[in-house]
Amino acid sequence: MTVSSATSALILIGNEILSGRTQDKNLNFIAKELAEIGVKFMEVRVIPDIPETIVDTVNELRARYDYVFTTGGIGPTHDDITSECISKAFGVKHERNKEAEQILLKHYAPDQVNEARMRMADMPEGARLIPNPLTSAPGFAIGNVYVMAGVPVIMQAMFSSIKGELKVGPQIKSVSIATNLREGDFAIPLGAIQKKHPDTDIGSYPAFGTDADYTVGLVVKGVDDQAIKNAAEEIRGLLLSLGGTFKDLK
Amino acid sequence: MTVSSATSALILIGNEILSGRTQDKNLNFIAKELAEIGVKFMEVRVIPDIPETIVDTVNELRARYDYVFTTGGIGPTHDDITSECISKAFGVKHERNKEAEQILLKHYAPDQVNEARMRMADMPEGARLIPNPLTSAPGFAIGNVYVMAGVPVIMQAMFSSIKGELKVGPQIKSVSIATNLREGDFAIPLGAIQKKHPDTDIGSYPAFGTDADYTVGLVVKGVDDQAIKNAAEEIRGLLLSLGGTFKDLK
Repeated sequence: MTVSSATSALILIGNEILSGRTQDKNLNFIAKELAEIGVKFMEVRVIPDIPETIVDTVNELRARYDYVFTTGGIGPTHDDITSECISKAFGVKHERNKEAEQILLKHYAPDQVNEARMRMADMPEGARLIPNPLTSAPGFAIGNVYVMAGVPVIMQAMFSSIKGELKVGPQIKSVSIATNLREGDFAIPLGAIQKKHPDTDIGSYPAFGTDADYTVGLVVKGVDDQAIKNAAEEIRGLLLSLGGTFKDLK
Repeated sequence: MTVSSATSALILIGNEILSGRTQDKNLNFIAKELAEIGVKFMEVRVIPDIPETIVDTVNELRARYDYVFTTGGIGPTHDDITSECISKAFGVKHERNKEAEQILLKHYAPDQVNEARMRMADMPEGARLIPNPLTSAPGFAIGNVYVMAGVPVIMQAMFSSIKGELKVGPQIKSVSIATNLREGDFAIPLGAIQKKHPDTDIGSYPAFGTDADYTVGLVVKGVDDQAIKNAAEEIRGLLLSLGGTFKDLK
């Protein structure tokens, strides 16, 4: 599948995911959003709250992809170190952002304003704010790196507001077909269909969905509706020819 | 926290996670298992079904960590390319494993045996099998790399059978406390408590759990029960001194 789209990667920052305490929900949300606007999602890294690891990972990925998203580590506590690490990664001053400062001063009652909360306004020099309609403390973007909160509902609001500035590519569409056959029944001829339709990506997934009779899912993806349709039609024919049945899925 | 434990990383291989079609369930399971046996879980990568990416990622991580686990891509279809890539990464022959071949020949009825299914017995030279009690096709280990299925229930069975051969370290224990205060209320003195207890890791997590009155979770982790207890006791005292309340969680 040759599509000239922007590429992207996601860095989930946080010990809580690696310790198993938190089940991540941000990866799947971002994956779906990126597919919708046709930005290629190339890689995800889950890394701990270790400054050098954050700095190195951000620098490696921002050089490699058009966009890098991060989630986590921008709150007020001692374990929130993402913002400082981003400044270090870019080699710029870590400073109080005046606009962010105003937002926080407006949001908090005077007796709630303290140094820990105001630290959430400390950002790399030249950062562009990403609004946080829920708890006010903004995320930010610098260069091609978008720094968002880890709390899913806040991250989702932040992502919505940056989505419009990402370079939209051909939307990746898909057709999904479930079958009662087993992967090994059709693997060889399915591989032949994939070869014949190089402008599609055909995936085969066992333990698909919840229907006990149709346990294997075949997904044809691509940007060209007709190419997807043609490959899917051959797959349906193949399944029937092997004595199987299928169901088209949404 | 200075603990001499084995280190590990996980590679989730599969376009279906990056496309958003599948919500990963393997990361959280493996994270919890590793914490239980005291193997440090340093990093996760989610990568697509691209041979060079798989080879490079495996080689980078197996050099850096004591153990590398992979999930996904060991089935019979054309998009299952993990095993070949592992052979390439290790620079060894990719060959039919006799023991795996016997397992598959025993499992499948003669009319079900075909080249696609038998391809699941092709492994790096010198691979050690990881049993699959559910669908028979084994995973394998080579060097410090453990190659498992992507289907969660199969991966879990495979992980159980390799768990015993991993070098057990001091178990990481934790105490969790939920509070009705906001992070910004206690961030500065909490940071001071962390500094005073360097043999613990104190994490603060907003949007914690489901109790609307206790929305911030404080987690003290470590390998020394007494150190954890001391830090947790100071945190409880801090929360009360700030006019807040807390709940000890399991």
